[in-house]
Order: sequence, then C-alpha cells, then structure tokens
Amino acid sequence: MHFLTRTFSFSSSHQLWNPELSDEENEKVFGLCTNVHGHNYRLEVTVQGTIDPANGFFCNVLELRDIVKTLIADPCEHRFLNDLPLFKGIITTMENLSQVIWQTIEGPLAERNMELHEVLLAETDENIVRLRKSL
Amino acid sequence: MHFLTRTFSFSSSHQLWNPELSDEENEKVFGLCTNVHGHNYRLEVTVQGTIDPANGFFCNVLELRDIVKTLIADPCEHRFLNDLPLFKGIITTMENLSQVIWQTIEGPLAERNMELHEVLLAETDENIVRLRKSL
Amino acid sequence: MHFLTRTFSFSSSHQLWNPELSDEENEKVFGLCTNVHGHNYRLEVTVQGTIDPANGFFCNVLELRDIVKTLIADPCEHRFLNDLPLFKGIITTMENLSQVIWQTIEGPLAERNMELHEVLLAETDENIVRLRKSL
Amino acid sequence: MHFLTRTFSFSSSHQLWNPELSDEENEKVFGLCTNVHGHNYRLEVTVQGTIDPANGFFCNVLELRDIVKTLIADPCEHRFLNDLPLFKGIITTMENLSQVIWQTIEGPLAERNMELHEVLLAETDENIVRLRKSL
Amino acid sequence: MHFLTRTFSFSSSHQLWNPELSDEENEKVFGLCTNVHGHNYRLEVTVQGTIDPANGFFCNVLELRDIVKTLIADPCEHRFLNDLPLFKGIITTMENLSQVIWQTIEGPLAERNMELHEVLLAETDENIVRLRKSL
Amino acid sequence: MHFLTRTFSFSSSHQLWNPELSDEENEKVFGLCTNVHGHNYRLEVTVQGTIDPANGFFCNVLELRDIVKTLIADPCEHRFLNDLPLFKGIITTMENLSQVIWQTIEGPLAERNMELHEVLLAETDENIVRLRKSL
Repeated sequence: MHFLTRTFSFSSSHQLWNPELSDEENEKVFGLCTNVHGHNYRLEVTVQGTIDPANGFFCNVLELRDIVKTLIADPCEHRFLNDLPLFKGIITTMENLSQVIWQTIEGPLAERNMELHEVLLAETDENIVRLRKSL
Repeated sequence: MHFLTRTFSFSSSHQLWNPELSDEENEKVFGLCTNVHGHNYRLEVTVQGTIDPANGFFCNVLELRDIVKTLIADPCEHRFLNDLPLFKGIITTMENLSQVIWQTIEGPLAERNMELHEVLLAETDENIVRLRKSL
Repeated sequence: MHFLTRTFSFSSSHQLWNPELSDEENEKVFGLCTNVHGHNYRLEVTVQGTIDPANGFFCNVLELRDIVKTLIADPCEHRFLNDLPLFKGIITTMENLSQVIWQTIEGPLAERNMELHEVLLAETDENIVRLRKSL
Repeated sequence: MHFLTRTFSFSSSHQLWNPELSDEENEKVFGLCTNVHGHNYRLEVTVQGTIDPANGFFCNVLELRDIVKTLIADPCEHRFLNDLPLFKGIITTMENLSQVIWQTIEGPLAERNMELHEVLLAETDENIVRLRKSL
Repeated sequence: MHFLTRTFSFSSSHQLWNPELSDEENEKVFGLCTNVHGHNYRLEVTVQGTIDPANGFFCNVLELRDIVKTLIADPCEHRFLNDLPLFKGIITTMENLSQVIWQTIEGPLAERNMELHEVLLAETDENIVRLRKSL
Repeated sequence: MHFLTRTFSFSSSHQLWNPELSDEENEKVFGLCTNVHGHNYRLEVTVQGTIDPANGFFCNVLELRDIVKTLIADPCEHRFLNDLPLFKGIITTMENLSQVIWQTIEGPLAERNMELHEVLLAETDENIVRLRKSL
C-alpha cells in the first residue's frame, strides 16, 4: 500500500467550554483549557493510492495541498477556532477538530481519486491525535 | 478509529550485558553497548478510543499522563536502567524495555478505559522501536 | 565567556491591536494578526557567568528555571496575553513581549548572581526575536 | 507486533521528467520539478520481528544498517538520482523511488530474517511517502 | 540590542567545481561534492533595529520576508545554483553563497531601515555557515 | 566575520559528584544528578575564518570534523564520562565539559588555521551551555 502525507500548520486560538455545563463544572473538566489560549497546530493529512505510470505520482500532491489549504488551513489561520462556522457547536478538543477535518476533506479528496487514510492533529509535539480509517 | 498519543522523555543510562555469556561473547554481541552509556529516551504512548460527547475527549489525557509518568517516566528519570526493579532480569535493549513498558501500563490504562495501541521507544532519532497491538 | 541557556514554552493567545488607531488603521498595520490567534511560544533565556569550582556550575540552573517559570512561563501558560497585568498597555508583538520579559527577570536573576545576556522569543520556528545585551 | 525503525539520510539531486512526453507536457505535469533541484532525503526503514531471548534484539540493527547503507544510502549520497543505475527508467518521484528501494532491500533483509514492513521517504518535512505491507 | 530573525528554505542542487583546476585537482579538493547533488537549504536572516512605539515592531517583518523571498528564496527554489546569474563565477560553497546573499539583500534591507546583522546558511543540520557583522 | 559550525553527537552517561563533599552535601547540591544517568549530547563547534578564493572554503570542514571526532566525539561515544582520562578530576557538568573540550581542540584547530569561536554543549534541547571567545 502507498501513502502520501502532507504537513500543514496554522496558528490559532481556542478554549474548551461546554455550554451545557456550569462554570464550575467546566473548570473541573477542562481546567486551564477553559481560558482562551493558542497553539501552532500541526496537521498531517495522509491519503492512500496507487501509482499512475504516466507521471509516477499516485495522487496529485498539488490538488491535495489545495483542498486542505482551502478548506482547513486557510480558514483556521490566525483565528479563534470556537468562532469558526466550520467548528460550530463542538467543543474544540483535538479529537473533535480532527473529526470535523476528516468529514470536511474526505469528499473533496475522493472526487479527485484520493482516499483519505489518516488525519493527524497535534497541538504540541507532546499531544497528538490521529483519526485513521481501519484497513 | 481514534488514537491519542502523548510523548514523554527521560535521561537515563544503561548497558547491554547478558550475564549468561562470557565477557568475550558479550563484547562480540553488544560491542560498544556493553559500556555504561546513556540517552535522552523518547517514549510515545498511543491509546485507542471513542469520543465522549460530554467533553469531546476520548480519554482523559491527564490520566494517561499520570499513569505513564508515575509508572515509567519518573522511575526512569536520571537512573541506571539496569538497576531498576522495573527492568530486573532483562537485557535493556529498546525491544525489551518497550515490552516491559507495555506490560506495566496496559492494565492501569485499561482500568481507566484506555486501550493501549502502541508503545514507541526511541534511543535517538535514528533508532526507534514500536510495539503495536494488531488491529 | 560562559553562557547558559534554558528553554521554556507556553501555549498562549494574543492579538495585535493599537487602541489609539482606528479599526481600519489596525487592520492595515496588523492584518490577520488583529484576530485573536495563538502560538506555542518558545522562550530561551541565556545568562552569562563564571564557573564556581565547588560545583562546576556557573549558575544554579534550578534557580534560573524557577525564576523564569514563576515570573513568565506559568503566568503566560494557557492565557490571553493581552489580558495579563504583565503586558498591560503594550501591543503584544514579539519585540514588546521580549522587552517586558527582559525587564521582569533581569533583577531577580541579578540577585542570584546571574547576568542576563539574551532573551529569545519565537512564535514559530520561522519568526524569532532576540534581545541581547551588548558586550 | 514488534517493529524496528532506522533512519538514514542522503543529499541528492533529481528532476522529474517523462521522456515520452513533450517539453510542454513535462512542464505542465511537473512544473518547477522539471529543473534539476535537490533535497536532504530522509529514509526510514521499518522491519517487523520477534525478540531473540539470547540478546534482547529482534533483528541485528547493525545488519539492517549495513544493508540499507550499502544498497541505498551510499549509492545515492551526493548523486544525481536520475543517472543512477538503481533508478534507471523511472521518473524519480518519491513514490517510484520508495518502490525501487522496497524491491532492492526486501530480499537481502529477508535473508537475514528481517521482514520489511515500511519504507518512508521524505523530500522535506512537509512531503512524505510511505510504502507499507498490508498486515 | 534587538534582533529579528526570519527563516526561509529552498530545495536546490549544486556542485563544487573550480574551472581553473584540472579534473583530478577538483576531485582531490571537493571529493563527492563535485557531483551534482542537492539540499533543503535553510536560510536565516537576522536584522537589527529599535522598536517603533506606534506598532511595537522594530521592522516590518513582511517587508523583510518579501525582500529575501524575491531576491533569494524564489530564484533559488528548485534550481541548479551553479547556473543562476546570482551566483555566476563563484564556487557554490556555503561560504560563497552566504556572502553573495549578504551583498544582495543588505542594500534593499537598508532602504527599508533594516540593518542586516547575520546571514545563516545551512546545507544540513550538521553543516552551518554564519556571516555576521562585527558589532 | 565568517563562522562555520559543525554539529556532533554522542550518547554517554555521567553523574555529578564532588569527592570533597559528603554524601549528604552531594545530594543537596546535585540532587537526582548524583545518579548515573545519560544523554544524547549535542556538540556544536564554531570556528571563525576568512574565505580562501582557491576553493571557496574558509576552513577545511573535513579537517574540522576529523579533529573534533578524534579528540572528543569518538572517545565519548557510549562511555561513562566520569571515567574518561579526558575529564579526569572534574565534575562533569556541561560547563566543565565544554571548558575541557575547548582546551582540547583549540590548539589542533589553530595548527590548521581554524580559530575556535564557540563550543556549544547541550544535554537536552532545554539545557544548553555555550563557551565563546570574546570578540
């Protein structure tokens, strides 16, 4: 199996807050993360494919870049993630963010014959979430 | 499938030595590694889970951190690994260390509903061992 | 000359905004940075000294760590920098932040016989500011 | 399952060019990559195995290193990849390079009881290709 | 003193060759580097300045970026450096490249009130050249 | 001014211990560092020079590499630093190690017309010591 990974980054702010909980409960569950803080997020998108003998690529890396940049990296760059329509109604944990990212890019990638295999989202080098298709 | 990875590090010393072999045999099998030397070990622990809608986490990253810190990272920090009760009776290769780490944290993680998926242990950026559950 | 550098990091949000300018002017000068966004800031503090033969250190690295952690890294961690008393009344550019950091830690370091030599503050690996004492 | 990864690097030049296409078509498909340019390639080879109780290794990391160094890293170091016999007749995309690397080292590794699991080839930290055996 | 550093990168090929020497002499002086090979070059440009109270910057980082991108990073990206008009007549060692880069950007930066302090050019993380103004 | 930096690494063990102090005093001054532990040390050696027009180098990087490798990196690799003749009689802090490294390589580099400018020694990315010649 062949996989192609491309890395993106964006510098954004967010806060963890569940509007259905009281202030005290939010504080208890999310601690310091209830404050508006920020990260240089690293996003790695991996697609699966087969090599096209005409050009030696198994997907057009430029199309992959454009789709993720247009739908995710550019809208998130220098923004407060909680305010974005993209993440409306979710708590902006890495787990939820990566799930929305998956749902947002899976279709457009498929239209260009790229099968999404993994979305990796890292707030720091120490905290990493991966959403992966089971093989 | 969702995976959460958290990275730890500890600066420890070790030596490779099989007490059942002669000095010459140890030298032949392990070479320079028979000397007491050291590394800034990098440990990446990955657990598998499903998202809890109440908080957007699929595991409590703080509990993951506490378990691995208490059972592995703290006891190894600034120690000679060959002398630790944790690694008693094994040759302290990355392969054996990662296996003991797996056996040590798998249960406590499971008690907190975290299913261990991968233990990655790296002596340097060039030498990496991964122990992974087959899916 | 001997120098000791210790690295710190904190994940914070900020926005660039000059209250004396109109919205349009702020937009023109600061662009996307007028939005609340965030970074994993990297802070490197370098002090200058001479070796103490009694212990082979030229400063107590633990005291250096405690001073910078207590006065800067902890108060900034998971906060909106524009709201902190520490940065009251300044535009939170890297240049201004590093200047305030210098002024905040120089005295406490001097009391412990550590002469501050450089404050490096990086928003990302691509954007770095250094404030350095001329030798 | 146990995996061992070892990292290699080589500084090489290449260009993307399909001799069956016209100059205009090459330009259109490969753009700037038609020029002779270069990279510090990073190659990560991962093998799968079981631990040998006699030494705590599941493969001899030195044999792994020698095989990949002799067959791939040394012949590629400081060379124009398009001119190497190793890559004769292929377009030197990461996808094709990683496939040839797989075919070249799989047999020699197997002779030493190492089962090849993954070949990762990165031109930069942003562009990564993985060729992986399905489990 | 305040310094601002901005990092750039470009993936280029080059070869070390002195046309005034014989093939044997070139081989003897430059060894493997006589072959056309390549790197992901890292370029760090540092300017010196004083803070403008109106915006908290001591130089306009966007102008710094545009000057270095237009004059250096873009022309070098995906090119054979020995063929570029920019480096005509020089042996493309890091030392010579950094000197030409300094001479090329010093004037345009000065016109925008940025005083060039250091040019750092790295072929790899192991080989780094710095050209620095004496203070 | 031109500077050339070359990076080396070695995986070694050490412990901080002053034989003139009691066990309790050692414990108090050095804490956990009294235990035999280890690091992947990073050593960056920077020399100063002027460009030789015959080859575009201002020093022969291969001679720099050989001197530091032979005198420092190879003898330290996979060793207990406290036991090495090189560091006899010193407490193996980064400060003392870097001073001995400076004294050991300064002469041999000078014989080859390389003027030593800086020795940087890092136990981890967070703890860095620099010994620098005043200009």
